[in-house]
Amino acid sequence: MAGDKMKLYWISGSTPCWRVLIVLEEKCLQNYKQKQVDFVKQEQKGEEIVSRNPRGQVPTFEDDGVNICESHAICDYLERCYGDCGKRLIPKERAVMSQVLQRMHEAHNNFQQAVIENIIYYCMKTDQTKWDKDLLETKFEFARNELNRWEAYLTKVHEAGNDYIVGDDFTMADVYLYPHVAFCVRFGLDISKYPELMKYYNTLAQRPSIHKTWPPSWKKTNDRFGFLDKL
Amino acid sequence: MAGDKMKLYWISGSTPCWRVLIVLEEKCLQNYKQKQVDFVKQEQKGEEIVSRNPRGQVPTFEDDGVNICESHAICDYLERCYGDCGKRLIPKERAVMSQVLQRMHEAHNNFQQAVIENIIYYCMKTDQTKWDKDLLETKFEFARNELNRWEAYLTKVHEAGNDYIVGDDFTMADVYLYPHVAFCVRFGLDISKYPELMKYYNTLAQRPSIHKTWPPSWKKTNDRFGFLDKL
Repeated sequence: MAGDKMKLYWISGSTPCWRVLIVLEEKCLQNYKQKQVDFVKQEQKGEEIVSRNPRGQVPTFEDDGVNICESHAICDYLERCYGDCGKRLIPKERAVMSQVLQRMHEAHNNFQQAVIENIIYYCMKTDQTKWDKDLLETKFEFARNELNRWEAYLTKVHEAGNDYIVGDDFTMADVYLYPHVAFCVRFGLDISKYPELMKYYNTLAQRPSIHKTWPPSWKKTNDRFGFLDKL
Repeated sequence: MAGDKMKLYWISGSTPCWRVLIVLEEKCLQNYKQKQVDFVKQEQKGEEIVSRNPRGQVPTFEDDGVNICESHAICDYLERCYGDCGKRLIPKERAVMSQVLQRMHEAHNNFQQAVIENIIYYCMKTDQTKWDKDLLETKFEFARNELNRWEAYLTKVHEAGNDYIVGDDFTMADVYLYPHVAFCVRFGLDISKYPELMKYYNTLAQRPSIHKTWPPSWKKTNDRFGFLDKL
């Protein structure tokens, strides 16, 4: 059965893990074995994970004797090895492919850096007494510009009557982007300030691969960071 | 002729641009047109680039009517569209492919973050009077661990009599990794502290695709940052 030689180690609420979970659904490889790791207990630093991934991180993935870590590498591996299983996530046609690849890497390099690394992780990891106010103001300006850039991309998408970040079909670009958007909402971004992003967020929340893999821990408590009000 | 419908806009000394230049050489697509952009004059923010890449960044690439930006996206595009031209950079065999993909993303996500973003860019972008000494000490520790991780990977490679980060053949993992290593050396990393990395650095410097595309601006002045002595 499809996926029955696979095993995924994952943590609820990790956007890297979520990406892999979405790809496995889209590619109809749902027979994989899985083990949910407890982040609070730091189980990813235990022997079972570290023997497979010396960095002690998840996602950690196995497929019939092949061991692979790093979420983007796993997504790419699954698309390359199981291209014709379920949904093709990177189209073969050159013009669409180029857009998908570009948006994938913009989501990873730009959206993640500008919004998640620069603000959410900075504020989470830095003692509040040490926040550099001027630096933070620059970071917020930069992040708003980034969010507005995606708002502009999605305006064109929606005006054309489409739902996905590259036109009329769900692709790897959505796999890269969506968990970042949901992560921001989860931690307190008022997405109604960005109506096109809100429409994208709500529409794709209904997609079976996303709905089914929604981080279970996000269904309970709701941690919101007030500092995201500035976005 | 191979590559004659391509055009690359690039900046000397940019590791993202260098990656694309290496791939074009490896894939024997050397007939591309190119325009070297002047970073000091901020030409990448001019109309010619911005009309092709609204972010005003390089590399910006065209291929027979298709426009694509983001260096990793361009590398991936070239490998997908021109897989059989010149050198195949992502092997088809599942076990080797998984290692190549993993090292590519580790180079991009971990090496770049730990050494280049956290230290070189932090120190370059932050006024020295505002450097957070405790934070910086943590960053140095983290970066040394990361460098030692690659040192360990390369110890195994060299012990097996190989030269490349994934075994006996040059792959996309080297395309992702090498410019980062060279960037650190250029800005003052004493690579002799990491003998396996030094061997890798020196050996691959002789590879035609790397030798030919070595950033021309690096052949002149040599900007060295004393803070890298701590690595």
